[in-house]
Amino acid sequence: MPGEFDFISWLRQHQSRSPLVRLGIGDDLAVLKLPADDLLLVGVDQMMDGVHFDSAIHTPRAIGRKAMNRNLSDCAAMACLPAAALATICLPKGVGEDYARELYLGMTEAGQPFDCPVVGGDTGSWSGKLVVSVTILGRSAGVEPVTRSGAKPGDTIYVTGPLGGSILGRHMTFEPRVKLARYLAGSGTITSMIDLSDGLSRDLANVCRQSGVGARVAIESIPVHDDALKMSVPNLDADVVAQTRVAFDHALHDGEDYELLFTSSGTPDVGTRIGEITNTTGIIGTYRNVPEPLTPRGWEHTL
Amino acid sequence: MPGEFDFISWLRQHQSRSPLVRLGIGDDLAVLKLPADDLLLVGVDQMMDGVHFDSAIHTPRAIGRKAMNRNLSDCAAMACLPAAALATICLPKGVGEDYARELYLGMTEAGQPFDCPVVGGDTGSWSGKLVVSVTILGRSAGVEPVTRSGAKPGDTIYVTGPLGGSILGRHMTFEPRVKLARYLAGSGTITSMIDLSDGLSRDLANVCRQSGVGARVAIESIPVHDDALKMSVPNLDADVVAQTRVAFDHALHDGEDYELLFTSSGTPDVGTRIGEITNTTGIIGTYRNVPEPLTPRGWEHTL
Repeated sequence: MPGEFDFISWLRQHQSRSPLVRLGIGDDLAVLKLPADDLLLVGVDQMMDGVHFDSAIHTPRAIGRKAMNRNLSDCAAMACLPAAALATICLPKGVGEDYARELYLGMTEAGQPFDCPVVGGDTGSWSGKLVVSVTILGRSAGVEPVTRSGAKPGDTIYVTGPLGGSILGRHMTFEPRVKLARYLAGSGTITSMIDLSDGLSRDLANVCRQSGVGARVAIESIPVHDDALKMSVPNLDADVVAQTRVAFDHALHDGEDYELLFTSSGTPDVGTRIGEITNTTGIIGTYRNVPEPLTPRGWEHTL
Repeated sequence: MPGEFDFISWLRQHQSRSPLVRLGIGDDLAVLKLPADDLLLVGVDQMMDGVHFDSAIHTPRAIGRKAMNRNLSDCAAMACLPAAALATICLPKGVGEDYARELYLGMTEAGQPFDCPVVGGDTGSWSGKLVVSVTILGRSAGVEPVTRSGAKPGDTIYVTGPLGGSILGRHMTFEPRVKLARYLAGSGTITSMIDLSDGLSRDLANVCRQSGVGARVAIESIPVHDDALKMSVPNLDADVVAQTRVAFDHALHDGEDYELLFTSSGTPDVGTRIGEITNTTGIIGTYRNVPEPLTPRGWEHTL
């Protein structure tokens, strides 16, 4: 039965190269040298079986890709360039080394277009379910990081793509918006940014809370994904007006779109305008000219 | 019932400061600025309930401390200065926010003497058991990182403290040897280093494999911890010679000592000399003048 050290040997042979990496997988720590002017950005994001994916349905390759892509999406949210990643895996006993390899190959595959190699990690087996975490390192590379806390009253709110219904499959296959984020942040008029992982209503609430502002959202201006439309047609007798609202609710509250929400003091040439930042503290949606409080219904872990 | 965002607010209020940290907990990623000349070192280490600790016995504070200390010990192994850490926690549903706070306080407490704040992380609850991972960032700060791969035939092998029997409690309460490692590496004659987490026999085998060398260990010269002695006295009738050997076997093969094993081309003024690096490929132990192959019996996960 192969053990941890065979797996590490395999990993060492399969790791991607990067000019930033002095020492990759196999020692106590990896060693990197970032360009002297770069800020270092770092975060971690974990996925648990039954919460963020279902190991009975999704392949290890797809699970690995998603784990990396969620972290690359965090780089997009801050407008930094991905530099390297670490993979941490709790592997259920008996699934075997091939399964772990597939997870790893999914991560590497997703990192490759962004020159983001896996440079380390920790894999252990246990009697519990699969947990896959990725730590991501990014660097500013000439673009000041965009935070969640810079939105100002009068700024316009944008999203970078259609939202809602990602549960139909897109939550496993999205593309992180790193290039778009770098382009937007490079233009200099972006005041805050977040990636839409917990749902627009919740993620916008985070931006507003951290910026100390409020917002007004024109619900009918939110771009609705086809998946949200599909999920809003329960039966042929349903009222069209009610169905349309259900689709907008999916766009407002579903999580895992991984598009960007950003605020701007100018007029960016990409993104769909969905509202404005206000100097109040709440978030108001308007739908068919009627204002309503926009309360988060998206994803929140309860401890 | 409090949720993830209350916990994040609490974390933001309780995070330690560091001049290296530009932006801590609460955004998509943390932002740091390392001194321009520094190499960046990074790694991750996870602990699973029932494998690395037992949540029925150990307090969350002690578990948090161990999670951080294992990673600080990896910094020691590379002779780098800890800079910051990230905490990733899979929390069993229903244990509550206080439990998560205690885990976090344990980590912060352990990081404090090393100016190593927790700058980010990811906490989620699930139906599974507790998993605690720490990602560690370190920096070279004027000392070239020491790897596992630099041992040369003729080098002397040292350990920094008594070994064996850590399961009696020390595996939860050890002190990472960061200062000692910096002192040793600063002296310039250290050729390779590793922290003893998997057991001397296995960790030395790693150093040898990665350095492409062999080793000869004088088993009777290994400093034996009192805990190993305690574990080697099964009953009053036992043969003293056999008991002594059992104690040495604990020192050779038990894991989680978290002392350092290093090789040197000179004569360092700290550490106990236990053997030499050879130009063969195996590791030979000598005990009572009889050579024996030294096969790892320490900890290895089986995937």
